[in-house]
Amino acid sequence: MERNATLFTHTKRFQYNATPDAPDPVFAKQMQELIGGQWGEMSVMVGYLFQGWNCRGPAKYRDMLMDTATEEIGHVEMLATMCARLLEASPVETEKAAENGGDGGIVGSVLGGQDTQQAIINAAMNPHHAVVSGGGSTPRDSNGNAWNAGYIVASGNLLADMRFNVTAESQGRLQVARLYQLTEDAGVRDMFSFLLARDTMHQNQWLAAIEELKADGLEDTPVPSNFPQEREVSEVSYRFMNFSEGQESQQGRWAEGPSMDGKGQFEYVADPEAMGPEMDELDPPVEPRLYSTPKQPMQPSSS
Amino acid sequence: MERNATLFTHTKRFQYNATPDAPDPVFAKQMQELIGGQWGEMSVMVGYLFQGWNCRGPAKYRDMLMDTATEEIGHVEMLATMCARLLEASPVETEKAAENGGDGGIVGSVLGGQDTQQAIINAAMNPHHAVVSGGGSTPRDSNGNAWNAGYIVASGNLLADMRFNVTAESQGRLQVARLYQLTEDAGVRDMFSFLLARDTMHQNQWLAAIEELKADGLEDTPVPSNFPQEREVSEVSYRFMNFSEGQESQQGRWAEGPSMDGKGQFEYVADPEAMGPEMDELDPPVEPRLYSTPKQPMQPSSS
Amino acid sequence: MERNATLFTHTKRFQYNATPDAPDPVFAKQMQELIGGQWGEMSVMVGYLFQGWNCRGPAKYRDMLMDTATEEIGHVEMLATMCARLLEASPVETEKAAENGGDGGIVGSVLGGQDTQQAIINAAMNPHHAVVSGGGSTPRDSNGNAWNAGYIVASGNLLADMRFNVTAESQGRLQVARLYQLTEDAGVRDMFSFLLARDTMHQNQWLAAIEELKADGLEDTPVPSNFPQEREVSEVSYRFMNFSEGQESQQGRWAEGPSMDGKGQFEYVADPEAMGPEMDELDPPVEPRLYSTPKQPMQPSSS
Amino acid sequence: MERNATLFTHTKRFQYNATPDAPDPVFAKQMQELIGGQWGEMSVMVGYLFQGWNCRGPAKYRDMLMDTATEEIGHVEMLATMCARLLEASPVETEKAAENGGDGGIVGSVLGGQDTQQAIINAAMNPHHAVVSGGGSTPRDSNGNAWNAGYIVASGNLLADMRFNVTAESQGRLQVARLYQLTEDAGVRDMFSFLLARDTMHQNQWLAAIEELKADGLEDTPVPSNFPQEREVSEVSYRFMNFSEGQESQQGRWAEGPSMDGKGQFEYVADPEAMGPEMDELDPPVEPRLYSTPKQPMQPSSS
Amino acid sequence: MERNATLFTHTKRFQYNATPDAPDPVFAKQMQELIGGQWGEMSVMVGYLFQGWNCRGPAKYRDMLMDTATEEIGHVEMLATMCARLLEASPVETEKAAENGGDGGIVGSVLGGQDTQQAIINAAMNPHHAVVSGGGSTPRDSNGNAWNAGYIVASGNLLADMRFNVTAESQGRLQVARLYQLTEDAGVRDMFSFLLARDTMHQNQWLAAIEELKADGLEDTPVPSNFPQEREVSEVSYRFMNFSEGQESQQGRWAEGPSMDGKGQFEYVADPEAMGPEMDELDPPVEPRLYSTPKQPMQPSSS
Amino acid sequence: MERNATLFTHTKRFQYNATPDAPDPVFAKQMQELIGGQWGEMSVMVGYLFQGWNCRGPAKYRDMLMDTATEEIGHVEMLATMCARLLEASPVETEKAAENGGDGGIVGSVLGGQDTQQAIINAAMNPHHAVVSGGGSTPRDSNGNAWNAGYIVASGNLLADMRFNVTAESQGRLQVARLYQLTEDAGVRDMFSFLLARDTMHQNQWLAAIEELKADGLEDTPVPSNFPQEREVSEVSYRFMNFSEGQESQQGRWAEGPSMDGKGQFEYVADPEAMGPEMDELDPPVEPRLYSTPKQPMQPSSS
Repeated sequence: MERNATLFTHTKRFQYNATPDAPDPVFAKQMQELIGGQWGEMSVMVGYLFQGWNCRGPAKYRDMLMDTATEEIGHVEMLATMCARLLEASPVETEKAAENGGDGGIVGSVLGGQDTQQAIINAAMNPHHAVVSGGGSTPRDSNGNAWNAGYIVASGNLLADMRFNVTAESQGRLQVARLYQLTEDAGVRDMFSFLLARDTMHQNQWLAAIEELKADGLEDTPVPSNFPQEREVSEVSYRFMNFSEGQESQQGRWAEGPSMDGKGQFEYVADPEAMGPEMDELDPPVEPRLYSTPKQPMQPSSS
Repeated sequence: MERNATLFTHTKRFQYNATPDAPDPVFAKQMQELIGGQWGEMSVMVGYLFQGWNCRGPAKYRDMLMDTATEEIGHVEMLATMCARLLEASPVETEKAAENGGDGGIVGSVLGGQDTQQAIINAAMNPHHAVVSGGGSTPRDSNGNAWNAGYIVASGNLLADMRFNVTAESQGRLQVARLYQLTEDAGVRDMFSFLLARDTMHQNQWLAAIEELKADGLEDTPVPSNFPQEREVSEVSYRFMNFSEGQESQQGRWAEGPSMDGKGQFEYVADPEAMGPEMDELDPPVEPRLYSTPKQPMQPSSS
Repeated sequence: MERNATLFTHTKRFQYNATPDAPDPVFAKQMQELIGGQWGEMSVMVGYLFQGWNCRGPAKYRDMLMDTATEEIGHVEMLATMCARLLEASPVETEKAAENGGDGGIVGSVLGGQDTQQAIINAAMNPHHAVVSGGGSTPRDSNGNAWNAGYIVASGNLLADMRFNVTAESQGRLQVARLYQLTEDAGVRDMFSFLLARDTMHQNQWLAAIEELKADGLEDTPVPSNFPQEREVSEVSYRFMNFSEGQESQQGRWAEGPSMDGKGQFEYVADPEAMGPEMDELDPPVEPRLYSTPKQPMQPSSS
Repeated sequence: MERNATLFTHTKRFQYNATPDAPDPVFAKQMQELIGGQWGEMSVMVGYLFQGWNCRGPAKYRDMLMDTATEEIGHVEMLATMCARLLEASPVETEKAAENGGDGGIVGSVLGGQDTQQAIINAAMNPHHAVVSGGGSTPRDSNGNAWNAGYIVASGNLLADMRFNVTAESQGRLQVARLYQLTEDAGVRDMFSFLLARDTMHQNQWLAAIEELKADGLEDTPVPSNFPQEREVSEVSYRFMNFSEGQESQQGRWAEGPSMDGKGQFEYVADPEAMGPEMDELDPPVEPRLYSTPKQPMQPSSS
Repeated sequence: MERNATLFTHTKRFQYNATPDAPDPVFAKQMQELIGGQWGEMSVMVGYLFQGWNCRGPAKYRDMLMDTATEEIGHVEMLATMCARLLEASPVETEKAAENGGDGGIVGSVLGGQDTQQAIINAAMNPHHAVVSGGGSTPRDSNGNAWNAGYIVASGNLLADMRFNVTAESQGRLQVARLYQLTEDAGVRDMFSFLLARDTMHQNQWLAAIEELKADGLEDTPVPSNFPQEREVSEVSYRFMNFSEGQESQQGRWAEGPSMDGKGQFEYVADPEAMGPEMDELDPPVEPRLYSTPKQPMQPSSS
Repeated sequence: MERNATLFTHTKRFQYNATPDAPDPVFAKQMQELIGGQWGEMSVMVGYLFQGWNCRGPAKYRDMLMDTATEEIGHVEMLATMCARLLEASPVETEKAAENGGDGGIVGSVLGGQDTQQAIINAAMNPHHAVVSGGGSTPRDSNGNAWNAGYIVASGNLLADMRFNVTAESQGRLQVARLYQLTEDAGVRDMFSFLLARDTMHQNQWLAAIEELKADGLEDTPVPSNFPQEREVSEVSYRFMNFSEGQESQQGRWAEGPSMDGKGQFEYVADPEAMGPEMDELDPPVEPRLYSTPKQPMQPSSS
């Protein structure tokens, strides 16, 4: 296909294989986490798009964000297709069961004559896959929670956001790896092998971008590094405070030695002092017409 | 530190000062972001608590998580108190205005006789601060969105979670810095100076914890590092793919050289190939009793 | 009962039968979609009420909206009652099981001595039906998502809203039909036969109302028709744009012939041109005190 | 740019102009409705993508859905860019104000020395635009509600979904038209002129697709038309029921004449009869171990 | 109007007056709390309906619940109408302003030529009231949050639920009283006078119902009273535990004397002992294929 | 009790035992309701914290609120730990199954060779427990809904809030009692015995606090009692209105006798009169540029 130079376009090939060996409605339910879960592909798709659109930094960062954002749309596509195919045979299976056993419904009563495996599937599958999407995936997680934009961030500060991106690719790859263990379907595992590889790249990519941002002198720890650090209460800037019994927490890298930003020394405080005043009561007389409870009985009041 | 044998306890001193110079209901609205926003203190409080409770790793990590989680409860406390105090004078102001101008209501009609500044405040303040919480803070963000647990993660994988924690402290410190610029109140800025310092520490702390996890051999890039990487489609594990016009994205650290995990070489692919098959239609005949649209007209059907 | 002329009233008869032949807690879970799902009866109840209350058009529309809104309250009532009855025998069943098998708990451990069917039900039923509502329905969908007002619309523009209503009755009837296939309970199917019929009426009703609005000269395609269409970039007002590989999309009614509003001719554009400028960077120098990443390193800055 | 055949790609030109004449942070807040609101461009983008991915009907429908879905990504892009630009000058303005009046903060206290217009903007602007996104748009609506997938549907039934699409384009165009009246900025209005035109096309397109589905014999009113209508309680399938005082609702097309599906005659029922039984109490004795309130006092009970 | 005996019906008279003296878009925004807020009328409407539908107790309770639920529908109606009227004059006002000042837009740029009062209103009004609902109310709160069913409860236990109802009427009346002080509009205040009275009744009603439940022997403190209390760890059933510094909490009725249920004696514990074991680590070796962080380095693992 | 001067602290002992006899992933799913459900421990923890922080009443109330809030953090801790332990053996079990039956995956296909009990567990367990939290609890309810701050209230009015607290402890104890019946695990029941006892105390505590508030003259029925009751439409302040067929509702305490606040007499109104005007149409001519549907056709219009 010839294409002229306009915005987003879509081709009709998958980035990689997206066909299971066999249907599995229960796994389809679990795999929804990768589509519309907190760390699913919709989150990286929408997150990177908005980070790219909000980007006011050098072109290479914006371009990279748009590259990967665009790739992620295709990842949602593969997962959505895989999910639809995992849902395909369930009616077929049941139809056969119905022929054999006279069980008329698609799924039928759990107490009906169908076999135990089918009964388990019918009872456990995501009701939305039958009733709402009619055999397709939904932009929701494995518990049916709608994807929402509270999962993502695009702050305009590239280091803050790329730290988020490292997280997202870490949580995402972790979830793919766990789901890999929850299925033995070779087709599903084949696609997961591809997603795992891309998540490996993307973890590396955002870690590299973080280094690049520092090398370019654009941002550093502590984010935002352009806030003048002398305005901090600097005596607590590198102090680890022990607020729970026991001092096992003293044994880590965070408790002594130079701080990671190279600007201070970690210090361990076993018994942190309150630096603030005694918690005095909220003082001013209550505005009576808000009807919050005062310290003393008051006369009824209205304007 | 001496402590008796009971779980959580609470004292009556603030960790630091939490008193503004003067009330400012509009700033109180904006500052809610730090209490109940996506990256506010409730998020780190609840996030670290669940990470600690779910932790199956070495004691030093669990202890550290509980230390900092416990500290964060006190940060919410300071911010909640500050917010309540920023809301205090508004009725007082208005009462005076009412005395002077005969304007009976607490806030009064925006079109009423009150002065312009008061009218702006009345119209712009968070209605919840008057109507719902009666002069107190709420566990919500600056737009009134209820805090929800979809903001946090506790995955059991400490590296994945500590990357989240670095992010949270970066976005959090960024927001404090921005709010610092949105006010000139010396009391508010004093408290922010403390929070900025603690966020500096916490960014450093989680970065140090990440190093410690690697040094302990417990986890590494790519997370989860215990998934056998040979099961990936390794040819794309370190390949940057260009999906948008232009190649500015080739100029970064992510496009060449050794990968950050030391296990591969970055490669730039200007024209990524689709590795998957042509997107064939979803094939199997539609189960007619789900009433999704088929490729061919069908007879009405019901069991 | 004599009633005088006041607002809403309630009688104690159902609009139709609402009794199942037998309890079925798993189907009760699935059927929740019709109560508190995106397209459940609560959505049409609340949607039509607000459309009626917001209506500034002729009385016949407002009256019709209130008629059907009021009917829908009774539909929620039937479904809620049906759901409660589907949940009734589950403890009874188990009590019997307990007597027979010494299984003391209401539901008991999934691994306990009970029979397989009961174990499936116990494991798969909506936990809210036992723990939260104690054997009653909830205003939630089949995955337990709370109904929320983001599902509905009442825009003040009757054609826009009645198009929504046609959709709601279509999705709703589709879901009832699918659930009809998921059960063989004659009592449930009897009630569904009534709901299907009413949804048939309501699809027809809103389609008729759309014709009426046009006949009355109040609104037309494109909604809102009172916006002067000459202010559009009219060259793209009837142009189908092909943004994905392949031109199968050229074969439809939308690609040629007169447009549905009778005001233009459909045109197929295989290779749409970008009409906008090159995507230039976001230009202005970043306000340094927002700490977004700039194009060039900057000095730390604070007011 | 040469592109090989892979999935989604992105170019660096806008579909149309996206530059305002001047910044306007308050309008930026209001315009967020078109990005992440219930009927904003994210909704049509995600909705059409999932409808395309779930599509099991003829290729022309799937292709058309992917075409328009892909176009909509570019619409979000234009709006996000416009929003970022509307937010640009606000710090500039303030900087100037600061120079002139010694007002150090970016926004500063509402009660400070700045001029009234600036004070109004500071108090009324979306706090997220300063604190969260640092001068960029967010995937949220004009009240700051996060976009969520509960706004969309992809049911597998194309007629049900295309009715939703007509609605979405109607509500969307209505909102653009209203926002057009809320601004006088020529640059904003220019972009809106383009969006209005595309919404005109898309309303027509989905109406055409509805006709095509009927012409192809794939679906019809009542949706789903493949459910055997004889299973309805057919006596109420075309009956308008009057549940509110007055009979203005009798005057419309929905109250008499042939039904819109050509399968019945509308009938007006002024006094609808209850067809169900008296609302008997929920009968079975309450399982005592659920601790719901029974009709008679019971002994304490536990297994 | 003659009515036959069917379910819900609607008449065309308001329960009380619902007309403001003058429009006030900012107050319309604030008053939304009473419609779709956590404690607004939608909450009592939906809450009482589901409590009634789930009720398995004596008929008088179910009937009472349905009575009041039905009344509440009419309260939403009054508030929705009031809100629509508060929004009415805003365009009219502006039209006039436009005539006088050549300000073409309905609202116009905040920085435009309009007067200050209008600029404040334009900037502060709920954008949904213009863009989404076109001058009508929405089922949302004063910050634009969609009403959701997570606000209500219908547990099947009448005492638990009626305690909720007392709360709802208390919070609701409190909010009406606060909003009463935020306006001076005599028409609004007139309607509020009615709502305040009904909330007085309803607080009394649910308190009376609580007494009735006890008198009927159906339920008592502690809810659920039918759970055999001897299964509690009874030594802590009436013990107040002091977990925060200072012992002001010893001065209340809860710290000594007979307990409110008459079944025990309050006891004050200044230094509560932990009764549980030391918090040992989560012990079992981590299943390696979940990739949570273990206590010791492990070999890569996959099935 | 000795405490050093720092806000919140944490010890490493549980308030009570939190160890099950055996793992049970399905019960772990159900028990999530007590952690992150509407009435779970997170709700009382966050609710009491904010009530304490917002408290402007006498010190004893604030101190008591902080005492109990702090205790509740420890309750979440016990439940989170219990949940993690209920999830522990599931992989172990499966590992054994895998050894025996060659079933390689952790959970494996539901249709695989594993035994039926394991298949039921795999299909029914909360996917988040495997995929998201890796064997830990989540801050969500039994259906996977994220906890959100819309569940709680802190109004500043102590009587209104303590009525909420009584409710919360009633609903909470009810849910613990129901879950007690859903398991036979002695370890789980042991912990529940403790929680039931504490809920008994807390119900009594808040009831006592309500008495204390009245005795102190700070607040009374109707809340807020400082609003001058003479501004109510007093004729309906103690009138029970019958809006549904039948008069069973006349038989309760709420229908006659002195009102609970001692300020009036209950009165039963069998046929309530509408006190408001006829529901006239929303009158003013529609502002044409909002494009809501008018009563008469209008010319296209734009500014």
